[in-house]
Amino acid sequence: MSFNSLRASDFIYGFVGLGLMGGSFARGIREKILCTQDSKGDILACDVQDASLKLAESQGIISKGFSLNQVDQMLEICDVVFVCLYPHATLNFILEHQDAFKKNAIITDISGVKTELLEGLDKNLRDDLDYISGHPMAGSEKEGFSHSSSDIFKNRNYILMPHEKNNLENLEFFKNLVTTLGFRRIIETDAYTHDHKIAFTSQLCHIIAAALVDSAEDTNITAFGGGSFEDLTRIAMINAPLWTELFAANKDELLKHIDSFEKSLSLLKNNIEKNDKESMKSILENVRLKRIAMSRIEQH
Amino acid sequence: MSFNSLRASDFIYGFVGLGLMGGSFARGIREKILCTQDSKGDILACDVQDASLKLAESQGIISKGFSLNQVDQMLEICDVVFVCLYPHATLNFILEHQDAFKKNAIITDISGVKTELLEGLDKNLRDDLDYISGHPMAGSEKEGFSHSSSDIFKNRNYILMPHEKNNLENLEFFKNLVTTLGFRRIIETDAYTHDHKIAFTSQLCHIIAAALVDSAEDTNITAFGGGSFEDLTRIAMINAPLWTELFAANKDELLKHIDSFEKSLSLLKNNIEKNDKESMKSILENVRLKRIAMSRIEQH
Repeated sequence: MSFNSLRASDFIYGFVGLGLMGGSFARGIREKILCTQDSKGDILACDVQDASLKLAESQGIISKGFSLNQVDQMLEICDVVFVCLYPHATLNFILEHQDAFKKNAIITDISGVKTELLEGLDKNLRDDLDYISGHPMAGSEKEGFSHSSSDIFKNRNYILMPHEKNNLENLEFFKNLVTTLGFRRIIETDAYTHDHKIAFTSQLCHIIAAALVDSAEDTNITAFGGGSFEDLTRIAMINAPLWTELFAANKDELLKHIDSFEKSLSLLKNNIEKNDKESMKSILENVRLKRIAMSRIEQH
Repeated sequence: MSFNSLRASDFIYGFVGLGLMGGSFARGIREKILCTQDSKGDILACDVQDASLKLAESQGIISKGFSLNQVDQMLEICDVVFVCLYPHATLNFILEHQDAFKKNAIITDISGVKTELLEGLDKNLRDDLDYISGHPMAGSEKEGFSHSSSDIFKNRNYILMPHEKNNLENLEFFKNLVTTLGFRRIIETDAYTHDHKIAFTSQLCHIIAAALVDSAEDTNITAFGGGSFEDLTRIAMINAPLWTELFAANKDELLKHIDSFEKSLSLLKNNIEKNDKESMKSILENVRLKRIAMSRIEQH
């Protein structure tokens, strides 16, 4: 089974967790992969929210929904399984249900921290199962299947962490899949580098946004807003249990970045206190050039 | 001269500084105020950049450009003057050139700090001149007349700081003007409250964005970006001299807000260090609700 020997449009895709992310992947696969006239593929899903399954069925996104009790019946017929749960739940689910997966199935997930997950699966996963570790850099402050949309992947980064056990044909299939779903760039790296970088670009940013909202005097402050505060804090409309888990799972990397950020903030603050306008101008000019260089990479 | 006795479309508008903001106001007035068939009004501008004046003339935004040496000739025929310079330059310009202004002229500006300016003008400005203190909460990380656009005001907040010397008819005219230009909401307050609030919604946000970019390991980090870092740091493409001046002019208020933010950040950091997931969840949940309440006000 691979992208070449069996077409992506003929696979049976299974979703464990049909929330914002699972739902968006399912929609994308339905709209962009299974859209060929002769497609023999299908999408199945398991979720604790029966309403999400029913909605997905009624919209033609999935052909059948499964309760958690029935999930093994679903797993045994799926070629590709997206586990779209919280990080710890993802690891636990795969290990607990690994006997139920179809032979040679591809398993992937959406978790925002990867080292723990890869280490947990490394020696414990059934040999024939091919776990592809990836992180779709997409999301929304709105949760749940009802807010899912295949558009959220458009022009986003997808971080792929291939490991030595991966089947190369499966990796090629998977890269084609995410590109077809709209991701603009696939960055290949290892789990440690991923967790270190993501602690900065994602987790630190969520901590800063949360701290900024926490420090606001009142909720009326946006009457004085010109867009900056709003842009900095949109991600503070946060899924508290999920992000608590992400912060904890990537604690060491996140704390390093918080320390660096605090030092940079302190430097700027000291310049303001000392009225050192020349140093301030020089730092801000460097920051400006650094951020412009980042935009070039962003748009690469 | 007022909105009622003389129509806004018959005024002569003068711009001192025709950069991004001055240019955007001039465009808006040309497109939305002087667009009536029988308009007798006009727009003049003074700028140190001759190229901006020439471009504005060629685009039909202004009818005549003036060098700084000639500015008094412009001021003596303008009914409404927009001083669109840096904060200190704004105060100095108005005081140094006050004898040149037309009798009963309206003067306004775009400076992001107001207490110093109002205090500087309070006892020193010619009695007949009507200084209207306002802050358009709009802008762009791109500078200069060539990036100006009347669209930047659309749905933005305009903060107006009326004072006892203001002519009420002029205030009404001015509110009508900024509403016509696209501002959605006019918040009326005093200069001290403005400076205190803006230190939070604008200046603190720019400091945070600058610190975050400063603390980035390298410019390649955006390859791992999912939107959060990009949204938090777009304003770090900063005009260094302008913001150095704004931070210095509002130093006391800004330092208070940096302290509060550092405390909130420290609280979150300590929870991560201590693995206190319950406290973390509780703070994040409060932050979520607080930010959602802010969105309701934002959209009010």
